[in-house]
Amino acid sequence: MSLSEQYRIRTEPHYQPQGNEVALFEMAYGARLPVMVKGPTGCGKSRFVEYMAWKLQRPLITVACNEDMTASDLVGRYLLEAGGTRWLDGPLTTAARIGAICYLDEIVEARQDTTVVIHPLTDHRRVLPLDKKGELVAAHPDFALVISYNPGYQSLMKDLKPSTKQRFTAFDFDYPEEALEARIVAEETGLALDACERLVRIAHAARRLKGHGLAEGISTRLLVHAAQLIRQGASARDACRMALVRPITDDADIRDTLDHAIDAQFA
Amino acid sequence: MSLSEQYRIRTEPHYQPQGNEVALFEMAYGARLPVMVKGPTGCGKSRFVEYMAWKLQRPLITVACNEDMTASDLVGRYLLEAGGTRWLDGPLTTAARIGAICYLDEIVEARQDTTVVIHPLTDHRRVLPLDKKGELVAAHPDFALVISYNPGYQSLMKDLKPSTKQRFTAFDFDYPEEALEARIVAEETGLALDACERLVRIAHAARRLKGHGLAEGISTRLLVHAAQLIRQGASARDACRMALVRPITDDADIRDTLDHAIDAQFA
Amino acid sequence: MSLSEQYRIRTEPHYQPQGNEVALFEMAYGARLPVMVKGPTGCGKSRFVEYMAWKLQRPLITVACNEDMTASDLVGRYLLEAGGTRWLDGPLTTAARIGAICYLDEIVEARQDTTVVIHPLTDHRRVLPLDKKGELVAAHPDFALVISYNPGYQSLMKDLKPSTKQRFTAFDFDYPEEALEARIVAEETGLALDACERLVRIAHAARRLKGHGLAEGISTRLLVHAAQLIRQGASARDACRMALVRPITDDADIRDTLDHAIDAQFA
Amino acid sequence: MSLSEQYRIRTEPHYQPQGNEVALFEMAYGARLPVMVKGPTGCGKSRFVEYMAWKLQRPLITVACNEDMTASDLVGRYLLEAGGTRWLDGPLTTAARIGAICYLDEIVEARQDTTVVIHPLTDHRRVLPLDKKGELVAAHPDFALVISYNPGYQSLMKDLKPSTKQRFTAFDFDYPEEALEARIVAEETGLALDACERLVRIAHAARRLKGHGLAEGISTRLLVHAAQLIRQGASARDACRMALVRPITDDADIRDTLDHAIDAQFA
Amino acid sequence: MSLSEQYRIRTEPHYQPQGNEVALFEMAYGARLPVMVKGPTGCGKSRFVEYMAWKLQRPLITVACNEDMTASDLVGRYLLEAGGTRWLDGPLTTAARIGAICYLDEIVEARQDTTVVIHPLTDHRRVLPLDKKGELVAAHPDFALVISYNPGYQSLMKDLKPSTKQRFTAFDFDYPEEALEARIVAEETGLALDACERLVRIAHAARRLKGHGLAEGISTRLLVHAAQLIRQGASARDACRMALVRPITDDADIRDTLDHAIDAQFA
Amino acid sequence: MSLSEQYRIRTEPHYQPQGNEVALFEMAYGARLPVMVKGPTGCGKSRFVEYMAWKLQRPLITVACNEDMTASDLVGRYLLEAGGTRWLDGPLTTAARIGAICYLDEIVEARQDTTVVIHPLTDHRRVLPLDKKGELVAAHPDFALVISYNPGYQSLMKDLKPSTKQRFTAFDFDYPEEALEARIVAEETGLALDACERLVRIAHAARRLKGHGLAEGISTRLLVHAAQLIRQGASARDACRMALVRPITDDADIRDTLDHAIDAQFA
Repeated sequence: MSLSEQYRIRTEPHYQPQGNEVALFEMAYGARLPVMVKGPTGCGKSRFVEYMAWKLQRPLITVACNEDMTASDLVGRYLLEAGGTRWLDGPLTTAARIGAICYLDEIVEARQDTTVVIHPLTDHRRVLPLDKKGELVAAHPDFALVISYNPGYQSLMKDLKPSTKQRFTAFDFDYPEEALEARIVAEETGLALDACERLVRIAHAARRLKGHGLAEGISTRLLVHAAQLIRQGASARDACRMALVRPITDDADIRDTLDHAIDAQFA
Repeated sequence: MSLSEQYRIRTEPHYQPQGNEVALFEMAYGARLPVMVKGPTGCGKSRFVEYMAWKLQRPLITVACNEDMTASDLVGRYLLEAGGTRWLDGPLTTAARIGAICYLDEIVEARQDTTVVIHPLTDHRRVLPLDKKGELVAAHPDFALVISYNPGYQSLMKDLKPSTKQRFTAFDFDYPEEALEARIVAEETGLALDACERLVRIAHAARRLKGHGLAEGISTRLLVHAAQLIRQGASARDACRMALVRPITDDADIRDTLDHAIDAQFA
Repeated sequence: MSLSEQYRIRTEPHYQPQGNEVALFEMAYGARLPVMVKGPTGCGKSRFVEYMAWKLQRPLITVACNEDMTASDLVGRYLLEAGGTRWLDGPLTTAARIGAICYLDEIVEARQDTTVVIHPLTDHRRVLPLDKKGELVAAHPDFALVISYNPGYQSLMKDLKPSTKQRFTAFDFDYPEEALEARIVAEETGLALDACERLVRIAHAARRLKGHGLAEGISTRLLVHAAQLIRQGASARDACRMALVRPITDDADIRDTLDHAIDAQFA
Repeated sequence: MSLSEQYRIRTEPHYQPQGNEVALFEMAYGARLPVMVKGPTGCGKSRFVEYMAWKLQRPLITVACNEDMTASDLVGRYLLEAGGTRWLDGPLTTAARIGAICYLDEIVEARQDTTVVIHPLTDHRRVLPLDKKGELVAAHPDFALVISYNPGYQSLMKDLKPSTKQRFTAFDFDYPEEALEARIVAEETGLALDACERLVRIAHAARRLKGHGLAEGISTRLLVHAAQLIRQGASARDACRMALVRPITDDADIRDTLDHAIDAQFA
Repeated sequence: MSLSEQYRIRTEPHYQPQGNEVALFEMAYGARLPVMVKGPTGCGKSRFVEYMAWKLQRPLITVACNEDMTASDLVGRYLLEAGGTRWLDGPLTTAARIGAICYLDEIVEARQDTTVVIHPLTDHRRVLPLDKKGELVAAHPDFALVISYNPGYQSLMKDLKPSTKQRFTAFDFDYPEEALEARIVAEETGLALDACERLVRIAHAARRLKGHGLAEGISTRLLVHAAQLIRQGASARDACRMALVRPITDDADIRDTLDHAIDAQFA
Repeated sequence: MSLSEQYRIRTEPHYQPQGNEVALFEMAYGARLPVMVKGPTGCGKSRFVEYMAWKLQRPLITVACNEDMTASDLVGRYLLEAGGTRWLDGPLTTAARIGAICYLDEIVEARQDTTVVIHPLTDHRRVLPLDKKGELVAAHPDFALVISYNPGYQSLMKDLKPSTKQRFTAFDFDYPEEALEARIVAEETGLALDACERLVRIAHAARRLKGHGLAEGISTRLLVHAAQLIRQGASARDACRMALVRPITDDADIRDTLDHAIDAQFA
C-alpha cells in the first residue's frame, strides 16, 4: 500500500459544520496558507481537520506533539542497518513529499526547535531543509500544514513565538450550540435525542464553572462517553458520574454540584 | 510462550467488590472506553485492574510510570545491534497489537509530554503512530487502556492535562469499609478475624492523621504485612510498629501517637 | 546538482527598497563585513537577504536558529555508519567552503554558546575550526555571514553577547511606509490597490497596540495572507479576522478592538 | 565461580545485636516482606544486612544508589558485541534470578525511575519486567529486597514516594548503647577496652551537638578509625583529632569544643 | 603539511605594543608560565596572542570556548571506523604534543569539566592525562597555554574557580590610547588619519556610556569596520551609524546620543 | 610500560614538612584508612600527596574532580568499537586493581552522587562494584584513597555528605609559616632569600583580605611564579603585579591595595 493510501481517510467522518468554516478552510487550502485551529479540549478540532482531509481528498498525517519530540522526529533520521545507513523520512517530510495535509496536534507542547523546522515550509519558499541529509525538499503542490492550539493552556512558559504565529491563518472553535450538540451525540451513539439533550444541559452547567474550580468544561466527547455507557446498560446517573464528573474533578464541592445537576436532569 | 500467554492472569486474584464497579468496568470495556481508577496508595486499585483482566480474559500489561519515563519507553525504540538497528515495541505498542489491557500505574508521575502519546489510542481513531518507525498501528479490537491516579499526589506541578483527563471514564476508590477490610486481611493472611479488626482500627486512627503530618494513611497492604509478621511469630506490637508505623513516618510525635494506638489495641 | 547550484536563487525575489540599504549592503559585502539585519517579525528581513543573494549572485544557505540548536548543528558532526563514522558538514561549514552567504535567522534564539562558533569567521582570520575533525577551514573569498535579530524579543535571558554584536555591521528595518506597503501587497497578490490600502490601515491600528497586549503588530506577511483569502473568494471581513486577528491574539478585548478596525475599513 | 558463590558472605561479619532485630528480620524474610533499614550514618546498617545475609545463607548483592543511576543500571542492558548483541542482567535482575538478597544502599539518592522498577518485585506479583528484553522475570523464591534510608537526609527534594514506602517493613537503627559500642570498637581493633570507653565518651559529647552545628555526630566507624590509628602508634590526641574531629567539621568553634572533649578524656 | 606547519603564523600580524607586554610575555613563556590575557571585547587580546606566537615562532592552536564544549572536545575522542576505532587528539592534546601555544578564547564560557582538564598541564607536572585512552601525555618543552578572559562578563554564575585562576600570570589589556588607536585604524584600512581620529573621538564618547546603558563601548574593531565602509564609498555618517551604533544598541535614546556624536564629528 | 610504572613518581618531590604530617599519613596508610587533605588553594596539598606516594613507593593516580564528572568517569565505561563494546577501566578502578594511591583532587567539585561510588572502597569491604560490567573488584592490598578538600569553597550547594566525610581521616593544611614559605620559594626558583621574604610579606597582606573582596589569598604557587618571572629578568614590581595580583582580582580597589603592598616591599 502506498504511503498516500495508508494515510487516506476512507469513510466520511461525522462532522456537523457550525458556520462557514468548511468553505473558509477550502479557501485557505486553495492559497496553501497554513491553518491554525484554536479551541478548547474535545470541541471537535481534530474531527474538523479529518473531515477537511476527507473532503479535499488529501492524505492526513497527524503528529501528537510533546516536549520530548525533537526536530528529527518530524524531519527524519538515519538508521543504521546491516548494509549501511538508511535515511527514514519523518512524518513532516513524508507529508511534504506526497502532498498530504500534515496536522501537528497540540503544537504548543513541542519545543522551539521542533516548531522552528516548519518555518521554511510556511512561507513563499515552501521547502524543508534536511540538514542532516544535505537535501532541500521542495513541498508537493498539494501539501498543507495545519496545527491545533488550545488558548486555555497558553502560559508564559509555553506559547508559540510571534514569528511562528504570524505564519498561520486561524479558526476559532468552540463547543457546538445546544441543539446541534445534542444531535451530534445522538447520531454518534444512537441514544434517544431527549436523553442527549439532558446530557447537553449538564455540560452547560459544568461549562459555567470553567475558571471557577474547573480547568475545562465537560466536552462533547465526554457526552458521547456517557451516552455510550447508557447504551451499554448503565443507569444514566452512574454513566454521568463516571463519564462526566469523576474524570474532570477531584474537588468534593465541584463534584457535588455536578452530581446535583445530573440528578436534576435524570430524576 | 506467546506474548498473549505471557501476560495472561492465570489464577483468579483475590478481589472483594465494594459496589457495582465490576459491572460498570465491564460496560466501559464493552464500549472500549478508557478507564481511570482513582484512589489513595494501597487501597486495591491495581488488584481491581488485575481482577478485571482475569474476568475479561484479557492479557494485562502493567507499566509503573515515573517522571523519567519517555514516550519511547511506552511506544518502543530502535536498538543498535551489530547488524544494524532493530525496532523493539514498547509495552503500550505490544498491548495495542495483541489486544491486551494496558495499565499505566501512577500516570501522574509521568511527564505530561509522555502521556500525550496515548491520545490517538483513546479516541475514535484507536491508532498508535510509531513516528520513528513510520508505522500506524491500529489497535486490536480487544485492546483497552486503564490508568491509575492518586488525587492525593496531585499538585500544581503534577496533574494530568484536561485534554488527557477528558479521554477517560473514572472510578473513585477508597479503602474498604471496616468490616470488609478486616475480612480481606484475614482471608489473605489466615490471621484470626479479631486480630484483623484490631489492625483495621489502628489504620483508621492513622488515616485521620493524613494531611496532618502523614502524607498517606496506613494502607490495606500494610495491614496485610503486619498480619503476615504476626503469623511468622512476631508479637502484635512488634509487627505493627515494624509494618505500620516505621515505614511511613520519621516524625517522633506521629510515631508515638501511632505506637499508642497500637498499644491500645494490643494491650 | 552541485551544492552551489542547489542553494542559488534562480528568480529575482520581489523586493521594494525602502532607502539606500541595497547599496550599503553591497559595500558591507565588498569589505566582507558581517551583517546584522534588525527589525520586527514579518517586515521583510529575510526577503531582503534573499534579494541581496540574488543580486550578488551568491548561493544562500539559511538556518532557522532555535534554543535547542547546538554548535554541531551549525558546524557539522560525525555520523555513525555501518562502516565507521562519516563527517557531515553543517550548513555554516558548507557556506564557508562554497562561498555562499550564510543567513542565521533569529540568531537570538540560539544559545550564546552556539553563537560563539561564528567568531573566528567574523574577524580578520575568516576561518572555521572544526575541532572535532581537526581541520581548520579557511572561508571561501566570497563567503559572507548575515544574521537577523528582532530587538522586540530581546530580554535579560536572551540577547547577543557584546563580543558577538561587535563583529557585525547593522541595518535597522521596519514595516514599509503606508503607500509602499499597500503596493507590495497588491503586487504580490493581485488584489486591487484600494483594498490593499484598507488592509494596511488595519495593520497600522494593530501596530499601535504593540506592547499594550500584543507581542507583535500585524506584519506585511499577514496582509498578504488576507489579500490571498479575499482573492480566493472570502469576504474581506472573514479574511481579515482569519488572517490578521485570530493568529495573533487570544484576548477577547484585543480581538474586539481589531474586529472593529476591520469593520470600519470594510463596512 | 557461580554468581551465587561470588556474592556469598564467607565469614561471619562482626555484628552485635542491639535488640530482637535479628529475629524480626528473619520473620520478615520468612514472609519475604521487603525491608527498610533506617538510621544515621555509620551506625551499622550495612553491617546488619551483611550479617543477616550470612546468617540466612543467601548471596548479597549491594548497590550504592546515586542520582545518575538509571533503571538500566539496576535491571540490565544490551551490549553490542562482535557477533551480535548480548543482554547483561543488572544487579537487581541477577539477585531476582539467583535468589539473592538485593541491598539498595542510600535509596533516596536514586531518581524515581530507578526507584519505581522495584515496585512489581515488592508486592504479591514478585516479578521484574525487563521491558527492553520483552521478558518478565519471576523472582526466585529466596529473593528478598532490602533498602537503607537515612531520615536525616530526607528533604522536600529527596524523599521516597508514599507508594514506595508502603511496600516495606522498617527497622529503626541508632548508635549502640555506651558499653556495647566500646566493646564493638575493642573487638574490631584490639585496642584496650578502657581507651575505647574514652573514645565512646567523646562520641557522646559530639552527638549532643548534632543539629547544633554538626550535621551528624561521630559514628561508631570513626571510633574504629581512631582506635586503628592509636594501634598504629599515633598518640590518642593526634588520632582523635585526625579521625573524629577534622573529617566532620570545618567550624573553628565546634573543632575547639571537640578538641577539649578529647583532651579531657586523654589528659 | 605537518600539523606544526598548519598552525604556524606565516606573516607578521599587525600589532602595536601599548607598553612592555611583549617582553613580559616572552619572560612568562621563558618560564613556561601559563598566561591569562584580560580585557574588554575587541581591544586586541587575540591579535596580541597571534603576534606573540609569530614572534616566538610557535604554532598557534585557538579554541573558541563555549558552554557545550566537553572535555573530549579539548582532549580527544575515539572515532569508530571500518577497521576498528581510531583515537583523534583534540586541539589541547595536539598543542601539548607538537609544542604549540594553545589559546583558549573566552575561557569563562566553558563548563568546569572543560576548565579542569588544563590543571595538570599548568603546574610543575606539565602532563595531560587522556583517561579514555589510558595515556599520560607529557607536554612538549615548547608547549604553553594562554587563555583570554573578559572581566566585564564575570558573574556569580560564570567565573573561573580560584584554583584555576591561581595557575596563571595575567595581563590587563584596554583599548589603545587615542593617537595610537587612530594610527592602528589608519594602518589597517588605509583611511586618512584625520578621519580615523574623528572615529576614535566617537568611540571615546561611547566608552563613557559603558555601564550607563551600554554593555560595552565601541571597540577598535568597530572603528576598523566604519573605516572600511567609508573606503567602500559609504558616507561617513552612514558608515558610522551602521558600523558603530546599530550593532551595539537597540535603545532609542542611546542611539540618538551616539548619532549626535557622529554628526558632531562629520558635520 | 606497565600501568604501575606509568604512574610511579620517579624523583623525590620538593616537600618541606610543616609538622608530623608525614608520620601520621604513614600510620593512616598502614591501617589503609582513607585520607582527606584539607586546606586553601595552592598551599601544597597536592605536593604533599605526591611526596607521600613517592615515600611509600606507590603509583599515584590523580583525578581533577569537577561538577560534570559522572560516576562512569571514575569507574569506567563501555566503549563502542567496530567489533563490539570494550570495557575501559576508569582511574579509580585502575588504582584499585594495581594498588595505587588514588587522589581525587577537589572532591567537593564533584556531584554528591559521583562521590557515592567510593563508599564500598572506603569501609571494611574494600571493593568496587562495576555494576555495568557485573564485576566486583576487590581492592589490591596496597590501594589507598586520598581526597583533597578546600573548606573555603564549602557552601550549602556544595559540601560532602556526612556519610562520605565519615569515611575519612583528615589533615588540616595551611600556607607554611613565613620563614619556611620563603625558603620553599627560594629553593624552587633560585631567587635570593631576601627577595623571597618580601614576596611572602606581600602574600600575607593579601591573605588578610580573604573574605573581604578576595575569594582566596595569594598562594605559595603564585609566589613561585613571581620569583620565576624575576629570574627571567622582569622587574620585581612587574613580576608581582603580573603573577600575584592580576590573576586573582578584577576589582580596582583591591588591585590598588595590593599594588601598594608590592611597592612597599620593592621600593
